[in-house]
Amino acid sequence: MREKYNQLTTLLGQIADLRHTAALLEWDQQTYMPEGAAVARGRQIATISTIAHNMSTSPELGSLLDELQSWAEGQGVDSTVCSLVRVARRDYMKEVRVPADYVEEFSIVTTAAHHAWTDARAKSAFAIFRPHLEKIVELNKRYISFFPPADHPYDTLLDNFEPGMKTAEVKAIFEKLRPAQVKLIQAISGRQQVNDKFMNLQYDEQKQWDFGVMVATAFGYDWRRGRQDRSAHPFTTSFSMDDVRITTRFEKNSGASALFSTMHETGHALYEQGISPELNRTPLEGGASLALHESQSRLWENIVGRSLPFWEYFYPQLQKIFPAHLAGIRLDDWYMGINRVERSLIRVEADEATYNLHIMLRLELEIAMIEGSINVKDLPEAWNARMQQYLGITPPDDAHGVLQDIHWAGGMLGYFSTYALGNLISAQLWEKHAADNPGIEEQMRKGDFTRLLDWLRGNIHCHGRKFEPQKLVERVTGRGIDP
Amino acid sequence: MREKYNQLTTLLGQIADLRHTAALLEWDQQTYMPEGAAVARGRQIATISTIAHNMSTSPELGSLLDELQSWAEGQGVDSTVCSLVRVARRDYMKEVRVPADYVEEFSIVTTAAHHAWTDARAKSAFAIFRPHLEKIVELNKRYISFFPPADHPYDTLLDNFEPGMKTAEVKAIFEKLRPAQVKLIQAISGRQQVNDKFMNLQYDEQKQWDFGVMVATAFGYDWRRGRQDRSAHPFTTSFSMDDVRITTRFEKNSGASALFSTMHETGHALYEQGISPELNRTPLEGGASLALHESQSRLWENIVGRSLPFWEYFYPQLQKIFPAHLAGIRLDDWYMGINRVERSLIRVEADEATYNLHIMLRLELEIAMIEGSINVKDLPEAWNARMQQYLGITPPDDAHGVLQDIHWAGGMLGYFSTYALGNLISAQLWEKHAADNPGIEEQMRKGDFTRLLDWLRGNIHCHGRKFEPQKLVERVTGRGIDP
Repeated sequence: MREKYNQLTTLLGQIADLRHTAALLEWDQQTYMPEGAAVARGRQIATISTIAHNMSTSPELGSLLDELQSWAEGQGVDSTVCSLVRVARRDYMKEVRVPADYVEEFSIVTTAAHHAWTDARAKSAFAIFRPHLEKIVELNKRYISFFPPADHPYDTLLDNFEPGMKTAEVKAIFEKLRPAQVKLIQAISGRQQVNDKFMNLQYDEQKQWDFGVMVATAFGYDWRRGRQDRSAHPFTTSFSMDDVRITTRFEKNSGASALFSTMHETGHALYEQGISPELNRTPLEGGASLALHESQSRLWENIVGRSLPFWEYFYPQLQKIFPAHLAGIRLDDWYMGINRVERSLIRVEADEATYNLHIMLRLELEIAMIEGSINVKDLPEAWNARMQQYLGITPPDDAHGVLQDIHWAGGMLGYFSTYALGNLISAQLWEKHAADNPGIEEQMRKGDFTRLLDWLRGNIHCHGRKFEPQKLVERVTGRGIDP
Repeated sequence: MREKYNQLTTLLGQIADLRHTAALLEWDQQTYMPEGAAVARGRQIATISTIAHNMSTSPELGSLLDELQSWAEGQGVDSTVCSLVRVARRDYMKEVRVPADYVEEFSIVTTAAHHAWTDARAKSAFAIFRPHLEKIVELNKRYISFFPPADHPYDTLLDNFEPGMKTAEVKAIFEKLRPAQVKLIQAISGRQQVNDKFMNLQYDEQKQWDFGVMVATAFGYDWRRGRQDRSAHPFTTSFSMDDVRITTRFEKNSGASALFSTMHETGHALYEQGISPELNRTPLEGGASLALHESQSRLWENIVGRSLPFWEYFYPQLQKIFPAHLAGIRLDDWYMGINRVERSLIRVEADEATYNLHIMLRLELEIAMIEGSINVKDLPEAWNARMQQYLGITPPDDAHGVLQDIHWAGGMLGYFSTYALGNLISAQLWEKHAADNPGIEEQMRKGDFTRLLDWLRGNIHCHGRKFEPQKLVERVTGRGIDP
């Protein structure tokens, strides 16, 4: 059995190499690739993905997983061997259900949809995107049909991003959260608004970059096993736990956005860099789920990076770097400014208080599309109605409304709720961490994050995909996701 | 047959995608990859190379090539179809001889060797690199053993870089060249030396970069299908004819070296960018041989880039960019300075007159290593002895001697002679071009290289690997490689 297990890990190691190689092709596409190479690059990614898919669905892999199952279970449910076979089996059973011609059609439809979405957004004309989104909804319904019936058809989609999570569970969490959050925002809106004009000045990009690097380094990001580059949209990608890269972008007249984006991506990267080396090149490498991943990025960006203790240490340094911008701005002004709450139209620019409402809106619309209780043609209206209901504002056009996100154009339904779940998990983890390490605020005041990172490594990062996300949260905090 | 041919090109297209993907993994390794990722990257390259090797040696490919051979020959010996099947068959027959485990071992050994070489060179400690080079020599001998005995064992290696070329032919060319070249250098050494002090000043890197970009653009390099980055050792690589990248490096106190290096790599890149689109994703994509490739880089770097007409156009612009360095230096001084002949230690910085001797030295040592007439441990001494004999100087340490080149660390034996052959071919091509386009000097005086590039495209570039290198030289110039 040990020999068969070695065969299994060799095969899975090659599949991991292929996935990481595809990730490098994509990273390069978004950072350095010359524009003329787009067609060639598309073919290369397709070739590598096809080979990875063929290996991931090979009868050889299926037989090995069958043969090893009971032996692996005998190693103990929390053992790496048992988790590895279980997760590899889960991935395998998912992937073999999806026919190759579906994968191809999905790829063709989403490529066209992406172009249509870009065009539709530029012209703020939902009608251009509508037929493509209709096809994407149909494709997602077809995808669901490949799987045994779940409690709710949306479960099948959600499970790809949040293993084991049910639509009913997410709905229950959001039902509880929404009224409280709407009320909070209404209360804040009624108060005097915070001044954050200093955020909208032009800050030197290289100095922003250097400051971001300093903060990421203080957090514990290992530059020997990572790097930062520029891209149109910030992201984190990993070509192994020893090569976890982040990207950032600089926006004119939005001084701190690159800094918070760097903290956010650093949070993702610390997760990937902290996975136990024994999980290297196995399916257990990577985060437990998108929500868990987001809990890490949000924890470093929002709970640490927007806290007063953090800035007690870093603000004097930032002032020194940008004296012309910040000399007259006191620490308290800065702290208030970076935590300003504002009802706004665009999700990716939303603050902590309003963000979850953007997510709830999308989840409800996605579920309705899958249930068939809403037609795609009625989506803009439904979007705007909910924006008014939850946030009290109405988008002036579809570009600032239903067309703002790229996810649906990429065929991804089932993804959005993980952002809000990540917010909740980050708060729960922080609460537990503060109980275990009561000195954390004092440590942050000294720019010292070592105990925090060690705690996250030991409790979350090292496990990779060994545990299902909700079980992992329960394991660490003593309870499930709790709004 | 047409359908089988389509099957063939589909399969060869996937193989091309894999090779280009491996090239991206390597490019990244030498430009942006964080150091901690070395082991993981080695495995990824190994996995991709193994899969490419398996596809390149598949019985399916072999059968298709067999079935198509006579049909392809019927299309005419100079047709793309016939060349494609012939070259694919040649590649196939070579590759099936090499076992997959050898390919994987080679990849792992050379990845480690590359890092050892970097370290060894930094510390000028050959002992660090020696065990790796010993493994590499053994691997090369093992490689030769997979093939039928040739006239000389080194032929098998040479043939990988210079198809159809024999060790005896190269030796004969070099035997004729060496005494004349040694004599020339001695004669020059006896004369008053040219002043090139202005070359050893510190030039601003960004300005050097910008000037290099301007020259590459004037040559016709297409930035929409390429880019330039920094690396320890300049190189050109291609991920398709629509993504041909160059790298450069800047050396302190060596003003123009980056510029000439950029011209050199641009020459390589123009070749790859100029291949006929119908050869895209086929084995005919790429240069006819390394010597042909080098003939292009040398032609642009040395024949164009060190010529008086070229600098009549560009020198006033360079003076404007570096007034403090060059205000008092006349065009003639500059022209003499950049063509100064000096017996020097480093091949890549050697001038046109001494360069070939550096190559002859390496060729002799490689042949000796393959014949077993020299041990790796004795290499530094043998190197230094030949340097003294051919150039009259002895390196002060191994970093300036046996450790200076990257090739052996990459496992490449059989490669070096192509540089000197490229020099010879570049001169032959230039002679023919000047006959066809007598206005070339006048055009260069205006910074106009369009007719030159068109001539190279039409006579050399567009053909890719359609013709064997010596046949291509004969086709264009009317005779073979002629010292």
